[in-house]
Amino acid sequence: MDISSFVTSLLTSFVIFAVLVLVFTWLSRRPGNAPVYYPSVLLRGLDPWEGRGRGTRSPVGWIRQAFAASEADVVAASGVDAAVYLVFLSSVLAILAFSGIVLLPVLLPVAGTDHALEDSTGRVPRNVTDFERLALGNVQDGSARLWAFIFAVYWVSFVTYFILWRSYKHVSNLRAAARSTSDVKPEEFAMLVRDVPVPPPNQTIKDSVDSYFRALHPDTFYKAMVVTDITKADKIFQEIEGHKHKIAHAEAVYAESKIANRPEGTRPTHRTGFLGLIGKKVDTLEYCNEKIKELLPKLEDEQKSTLSEKQQRAAFVFFNSRAAAASASQTLHAQMFDEWTVTEAPEPRAVIWTNLPRKIYDRQTRQTVVYLIVFVTVVFYMIPITAISAVTTLEQLRKKLPFLKVVVDQPLLKTVLQAYLPQIALIVFLALLPTLLVFLSKSEGIPSQSHVVRASSGKYFYFIVFNVFIGYAIGSSLFSALQKVIENPTGIVTTLGSRLPGNATFFLTFVALKFFVGYGLELSRLVPLIIFHLKRKYLCKTEDEVRAAWAPGDLGYNTRVPNDLLIVTLVMCYSVIAPLILPFGVAYFALGWLIAKNQVSKIFIYENVLRVYVPIYESNGRMWPHMHTRIIAALMIYQATMLGIIGLKRFYYSTILAPLLAISLIFAYTCHTRFYPAFAKTPLEVASQQLKETPNMSTIYTAYIPACLKPEKLEDVEVFEDAQSRTTSRAPSF
Amino acid sequence: MDISSFVTSLLTSFVIFAVLVLVFTWLSRRPGNAPVYYPSVLLRGLDPWEGRGRGTRSPVGWIRQAFAASEADVVAASGVDAAVYLVFLSSVLAILAFSGIVLLPVLLPVAGTDHALEDSTGRVPRNVTDFERLALGNVQDGSARLWAFIFAVYWVSFVTYFILWRSYKHVSNLRAAARSTSDVKPEEFAMLVRDVPVPPPNQTIKDSVDSYFRALHPDTFYKAMVVTDITKADKIFQEIEGHKHKIAHAEAVYAESKIANRPEGTRPTHRTGFLGLIGKKVDTLEYCNEKIKELLPKLEDEQKSTLSEKQQRAAFVFFNSRAAAASASQTLHAQMFDEWTVTEAPEPRAVIWTNLPRKIYDRQTRQTVVYLIVFVTVVFYMIPITAISAVTTLEQLRKKLPFLKVVVDQPLLKTVLQAYLPQIALIVFLALLPTLLVFLSKSEGIPSQSHVVRASSGKYFYFIVFNVFIGYAIGSSLFSALQKVIENPTGIVTTLGSRLPGNATFFLTFVALKFFVGYGLELSRLVPLIIFHLKRKYLCKTEDEVRAAWAPGDLGYNTRVPNDLLIVTLVMCYSVIAPLILPFGVAYFALGWLIAKNQVSKIFIYENVLRVYVPIYESNGRMWPHMHTRIIAALMIYQATMLGIIGLKRFYYSTILAPLLAISLIFAYTCHTRFYPAFAKTPLEVASQQLKETPNMSTIYTAYIPACLKPEKLEDVEVFEDAQSRTTSRAPSF
Repeated sequence: MDISSFVTSLLTSFVIFAVLVLVFTWLSRRPGNAPVYYPSVLLRGLDPWEGRGRGTRSPVGWIRQAFAASEADVVAASGVDAAVYLVFLSSVLAILAFSGIVLLPVLLPVAGTDHALEDSTGRVPRNVTDFERLALGNVQDGSARLWAFIFAVYWVSFVTYFILWRSYKHVSNLRAAARSTSDVKPEEFAMLVRDVPVPPPNQTIKDSVDSYFRALHPDTFYKAMVVTDITKADKIFQEIEGHKHKIAHAEAVYAESKIANRPEGTRPTHRTGFLGLIGKKVDTLEYCNEKIKELLPKLEDEQKSTLSEKQQRAAFVFFNSRAAAASASQTLHAQMFDEWTVTEAPEPRAVIWTNLPRKIYDRQTRQTVVYLIVFVTVVFYMIPITAISAVTTLEQLRKKLPFLKVVVDQPLLKTVLQAYLPQIALIVFLALLPTLLVFLSKSEGIPSQSHVVRASSGKYFYFIVFNVFIGYAIGSSLFSALQKVIENPTGIVTTLGSRLPGNATFFLTFVALKFFVGYGLELSRLVPLIIFHLKRKYLCKTEDEVRAAWAPGDLGYNTRVPNDLLIVTLVMCYSVIAPLILPFGVAYFALGWLIAKNQVSKIFIYENVLRVYVPIYESNGRMWPHMHTRIIAALMIYQATMLGIIGLKRFYYSTILAPLLAISLIFAYTCHTRFYPAFAKTPLEVASQQLKETPNMSTIYTAYIPACLKPEKLEDVEVFEDAQSRTTSRAPSF
Repeated sequence: MDISSFVTSLLTSFVIFAVLVLVFTWLSRRPGNAPVYYPSVLLRGLDPWEGRGRGTRSPVGWIRQAFAASEADVVAASGVDAAVYLVFLSSVLAILAFSGIVLLPVLLPVAGTDHALEDSTGRVPRNVTDFERLALGNVQDGSARLWAFIFAVYWVSFVTYFILWRSYKHVSNLRAAARSTSDVKPEEFAMLVRDVPVPPPNQTIKDSVDSYFRALHPDTFYKAMVVTDITKADKIFQEIEGHKHKIAHAEAVYAESKIANRPEGTRPTHRTGFLGLIGKKVDTLEYCNEKIKELLPKLEDEQKSTLSEKQQRAAFVFFNSRAAAASASQTLHAQMFDEWTVTEAPEPRAVIWTNLPRKIYDRQTRQTVVYLIVFVTVVFYMIPITAISAVTTLEQLRKKLPFLKVVVDQPLLKTVLQAYLPQIALIVFLALLPTLLVFLSKSEGIPSQSHVVRASSGKYFYFIVFNVFIGYAIGSSLFSALQKVIENPTGIVTTLGSRLPGNATFFLTFVALKFFVGYGLELSRLVPLIIFHLKRKYLCKTEDEVRAAWAPGDLGYNTRVPNDLLIVTLVMCYSVIAPLILPFGVAYFALGWLIAKNQVSKIFIYENVLRVYVPIYESNGRMWPHMHTRIIAALMIYQATMLGIIGLKRFYYSTILAPLLAISLIFAYTCHTRFYPAFAKTPLEVASQQLKETPNMSTIYTAYIPACLKPEKLEDVEVFEDAQSRTTSRAPSF
């Protein structure tokens, strides 16, 4: 890529970004768009424009607001997970900024004043850009100037260690603070028990769980809730909910028709067959009300039979203090590991009910199979795609399907098809990948939603780093690279070293594009806005439906974090090869931090509300160790690459870089032993903090009842308990 | 080795064995030897010859007795560790016996009727022994007969899985039974706390430990005992003990002199200088009594100052129930992992006091360094020895030290020296190795003696398997083998495959020798007997001294188990190559089991006493997972070897063996997840068993007071507590 097209590409991206920012500023001032930009504010029934008035909607207003919010505000508004994501962004930003402060003034002059790229007459050839002259490529082989580059690698590494250590400590304290608040959280009083052994014939599972835990925790056991197979009950429940929704929609339509045409209106009708297109035409309101009347007793029967007959071999056990629950969930209960396995309970809203009753051997098998599939996907994904594109070349198509000749021989169509067929295959695959990974992670038997997100995020990271970065850099699919590695294990470093510098410009453009276009879209929320307006215009009739249309998702950790990590890996690896990439990296994470903070923190400091994202679960920062490890992985790829590149420059002191790899491993291990246990388990110190109020144990218990099993009125909870519990429950001993 | 020398070697070994058995029978009938053969009986003040009378001392009498003792008897007499060692021997025996039952009748005819070793005229060359004709070497390349060998490998593998699974289950139950007995064991009420943070300036460590655990375990905390630096107090204590011992010895000598010469006797004297050889001559009795009088107040002062001023940052915390201690020791206490780390308390008698206060980073560093040293020792130990032997060749010596010429030129001496110099270096090194490994394991900072034994046993296993077996088989030091492996990773299987069959006779002789001579010596206890008689004749004067002279050690796990495991590895690897090794393996472990049981179980079934070995600690079978893993390692070496050997026979179906390696890994992993947690932690199920009596908490507490800090009278324990504890201790809440 020559310098002019590089500049063109940067300029184009910047223009797009500027336009999107202007669009955002303009659109967010229009009241009709409020649900897209301030959903949380509306969710809590507040008016987003009261308070400081319209002045704050200027292009810089939101920046000031983003800075104004403190971390405590973020935690209060969006939870610890959002705050941890901000810590991640600011840590990476700090790493890159501190690196840049030293690397730019040191390395640019060192590289720029050397002459490796000049030809024998001392002139720089025409096709060498200024960008390339300011990079490692311009330093002569074996030159003492390479010491500066070795120093730079050490500087970046130690900056990373320092920042990561501080951040881990910080997040660790955040988590401890969040876990030791005096609020009563149901999951802190509960423990998840799986692999309950088959009870003796005269006992139900519920009875055996009750008696087992009452015997082992006589003073602290409160009650147990056996997991039941709710598939059927849930189906009926969803049917009823669907009918209720239809009634609300029909009523709105009916009311509208009254005003528009005649005072009596038209009663809405629909057909009962497939998609409402075929079958008998019925009056919607009457039909649905009748259906609900039919289904309600059915649901009640099903609820009862589910509770008594469909007990599964898993349970939630509740304790009357946080410390007791924390201690119990960390203690081995049974002599045999495949019975009575206990773990901390996930949040009620994050529980994946269908995964709970899976047996330990089932879970292990599933995990092994999933890992295998992911490994094969990461390593060999190029093969099916190459195969598809090979089959779908036009020549092949013409031969095999002669009737296509007429179409294929059109010159324009031919060009387009030829250019895009393989890419389309690749794009479709890549678009489906996150969904596939979430599905695979769920199949492992993981009990909670937040854990699934972490698991699929990890898988996605490996995929994009190996394929986008290493795959592109080595200039071949990972499969052929692996072959080379097997033949010559130390060759990977040399290969990376020889290939990476050539691709500097490409990746610089990549980062810039991600920065301008990606963030522009993110900030302006153009896509959700369009979808929202379309839905409101043509589909939504009731308030609930409008609300559903602008319902915001969570941050989307599972693709967002790996993508950020890819940028980290890229910028780190090129930080010393071509230091000019650093400002782009810094800009990327600085803007990323601003936008995330803007979306995550409250709009006005005195209103305790969310901005755009509503968290669907709270894992108290369990994502951090995951991010931490992967930043270190990026650092180690970087260190190995530099070892190769400087070695290729015939610089015999390049082995001075080798200890860095060992230091990184030791650093990772030390952080892991020091901080990780407090993320995997609840320390007793934290769980023993005083509570604000005496916990209402029955509320805690009720929180874990699945929606489809909840009786219509909350007072009926006792009925639920009686149905499930046959032994008299012991009162908590406060 | 030809057949005649092989038979000679076997016969010689057998004769030695027979002689040793006869010696045992004769010697053990002589009352003077009783302390060597029945120390435990004497230790408990019983007469070994009462009961069934002398008839039981016939050569077969002890075999009958060994069979008569049940496992419960063994546990009662020698503890779970001894019983687990018997389970280990019987498991291996069962594996080899079941393998032999199928392999001998199947493989011997298959191999014996083939013709690979015949020359072109159809005759068997003279140098081929019958032994070699009955082995895999006689099967022709690519012959379908190799299917029988592949089947044999599968048979051995599945027999091993089956037996190991059963044994693990059995040992697991043994351990659970031992841990859930109703006896009060101090270690079950205690927890070891390390990495206590520096207390605030106005608090002692003891205070901060007390207040921390009282806050976290308000209902179950009994008391804490801070570890103190007892080096100085222990030195004074040992000095006093030494003087007491000297007085007893001198009194005995004095009494003897009275009878022998004159009624008034000679008062024994000694010199106070180095080794009693120089210095002033003093009256021993007076001098020692005076010294004790001097030292006793010094000890008391030192005890007091130790308790108050030499507190270390580690402590034992006592709970008032077993379940509470088990649960607490499994629960993470602090937010930071490097503070308040808790583990189960080791037995009082197994505690290594000096290791307790080591900080977590110190421990990790030490462990890393030790592992590195062991790795280097295992891999490179041949280098210094080769170097030494290179330097110490006689030619070299003559050149460098010309004055040795006179000695070295003697023809006889020259031959002897030339033959043995390198071996002497090797033997010295190998003799020192177990001690070195125990020392290294202790340096890791391991808190208990039993753990040190496990750790050094593991290291020794790697050493002997890699060096004796693989080293000898590959015909070079492991170092050059490793070089080959790095160059060509899959080559190791081929190398093993091509080298092993040639060494079959050597290893068969090795097993036979170990069997006859090793067990002969073990059974007859000739060496301890000679040492005992020498000591009694020339050194011992008092009863206590005689007792010390025949004091039996424990089983010596740290060298015994790895040596047994080496035999397992050998016999397994050759079981299919040369099935004739199997009977020797079976005989080895059958006799091993008999002798171990004989020594470990009580002599007469109705007397609950030990036979020869007195356990110095009880780890409730924690050695088993260690043995289990290493048997699987042996199995995997065997499977890889067979893959290589059958592959070298140009048999293309040899890859059918590859899945076995994966199956072994899965088996190991499954066993680990299923059984191991109950070995590493105490299940709550087990700890919640009822106790026989209300535990006396002060006895439990006193058990952990080191000998040198124990006041002279036991009633003074309260003083000890007051000195150590500044807060009023809370009474246990029974």
